[in-house]
Amino acid sequence: MIAAAGFLERARSLVDEALERHLPRSPDCPALLAEAMRYSLFAGGKRLRPLLTLAAADAVRANRPESEAIADALPAACAVELIHTYSLIHDDLPAMDNDTLRRGRPTLHVVYGDGIAILAGDGLQAEAFALIAREPATDDVAVVARKVKAARVIAEAAGATGMVGGQTLDLQAAGQVPGHPLELDANALPAMHQRKTGALIRASAESGAIMGGGSDAVIAAVRSWGGHVGLAFQIVDDILDVEGSSEELGKTAGKDVAGNKPTYPSIFGLERSRRMADECTARARESLLNVGLDGSQLARIADWVISRRS
Amino acid sequence: MIAAAGFLERARSLVDEALERHLPRSPDCPALLAEAMRYSLFAGGKRLRPLLTLAAADAVRANRPESEAIADALPAACAVELIHTYSLIHDDLPAMDNDTLRRGRPTLHVVYGDGIAILAGDGLQAEAFALIAREPATDDVAVVARKVKAARVIAEAAGATGMVGGQTLDLQAAGQVPGHPLELDANALPAMHQRKTGALIRASAESGAIMGGGSDAVIAAVRSWGGHVGLAFQIVDDILDVEGSSEELGKTAGKDVAGNKPTYPSIFGLERSRRMADECTARARESLLNVGLDGSQLARIADWVISRRS
Repeated sequence: MIAAAGFLERARSLVDEALERHLPRSPDCPALLAEAMRYSLFAGGKRLRPLLTLAAADAVRANRPESEAIADALPAACAVELIHTYSLIHDDLPAMDNDTLRRGRPTLHVVYGDGIAILAGDGLQAEAFALIAREPATDDVAVVARKVKAARVIAEAAGATGMVGGQTLDLQAAGQVPGHPLELDANALPAMHQRKTGALIRASAESGAIMGGGSDAVIAAVRSWGGHVGLAFQIVDDILDVEGSSEELGKTAGKDVAGNKPTYPSIFGLERSRRMADECTARARESLLNVGLDGSQLARIADWVISRRS
Repeated sequence: MIAAAGFLERARSLVDEALERHLPRSPDCPALLAEAMRYSLFAGGKRLRPLLTLAAADAVRANRPESEAIADALPAACAVELIHTYSLIHDDLPAMDNDTLRRGRPTLHVVYGDGIAILAGDGLQAEAFALIAREPATDDVAVVARKVKAARVIAEAAGATGMVGGQTLDLQAAGQVPGHPLELDANALPAMHQRKTGALIRASAESGAIMGGGSDAVIAAVRSWGGHVGLAFQIVDDILDVEGSSEELGKTAGKDVAGNKPTYPSIFGLERSRRMADECTARARESLLNVGLDGSQLARIADWVISRRS
């Protein structure tokens, strides 16, 4: 096993290297588009989602060699990061959240204009599915079947019933769709987040469990873990938005509050929000415990997600 | 075989029915998003691309029952139409071509705003890949392998090296990317179109040949056919833009000329453009002749593409 302490660093560099290798470049792809896609993809992101994919593959691999399980899961890991990056680009557009700063740098549309930002996002989404279909390049029927299963899980999490659906609700809640207002209360807020960020986080872990060769029961447990961790991640994000400074976050802090966007702290208060995050973490641990994966890298990552400061 | 004269009508109704059946609806998907996706998807499109997919599957099936080949290819057929529709929605945005009329109706962003139009497009692309991964729902290893192959062909055609790349070049050529101008000459214009519209048309036919169970040689022939037909389609489109009226086209005619966009007629003249389209058609026929598919529905569709008036 990759040494516990170094797992995140090692996995992160595998992902960065694979993203760079697989991303289209000129002349196959127009130089400007290649440049725009890389601008957002290599902007110092935490790579949380692909790390979940690789950690899940590592957790479920049982007697498979680690290198094999990780290699099989790496394309899916890259795919969820490509989709996450495209969603940030589109969310930042003036027609959506209208953010001009992301990870301490001007957002993509500020640099290249809205049209190129829309296209770079569209291109990243397509490349995500092209990559899963292409890699690992094998005729092994078990791996081919896993690829289809992982592609389905990721596409459904990214689409209208997942991330895109959540962003739609968020846009309505922000009053940005005339004639279609939406009020986010104590029920609707978690439901929105479960789609907007939770679905892809869950799919990141689940696709790793699939590509790692987990049994159906193990895949279901990792899926459940991912659901709880995704929710905890969003609650912590909302708490950080209240507590953090722009410098620490690399984006405009207090923006949710300033925009009157409902958040966990604004609806449930700071104390209860912290308790809710802890509860999610406890439930996540339980999911792994049930299938004997409580000692895995995956279990440790939940702690990292909750204790992060940015 | 579906009766020759009725093939297009029958295939079109299969596609419409499958699209309606597979598209997410409320409550799985926010009602507003489901409505927006349907607005563009059921706007009276010709369904050219999915018809190519089904015709290709029918052409290559050899001794397979027709119903089986068509059923296997139907999800891929729907996928290419979902991707085509998403690309129209994004292309029509103010940040891109800024079109307010499409198929005789206000474009999606005019009705729901730019944010929802971006999201509806994003959602349609994700659903395309979710659908191929999900359907046909089978463990048959040959069919599963074909699904991965078709997904790859479609994703690569849709992405940065295909459609999205072509739209980037188009945006640069229209002078809409400050600091990154591009002049389309007699070489660059066909290269742009080959990506922008040609790649997905070719992938529509190729994915049908894959799902229909064609041999590698037959798939390659259909792929080549699709390349020639895709180019012919674009040339005819440009000619119609000069000759047609807004009423016939259901979109703003003469827009390319008015916007000083280079077109086949503006670069090569009307007569030579017509000859180029005929040459493409001849080459397309040859590709099919080489593998004995010159009597198929696919061969007939090329004539339909060239002789269309809108």
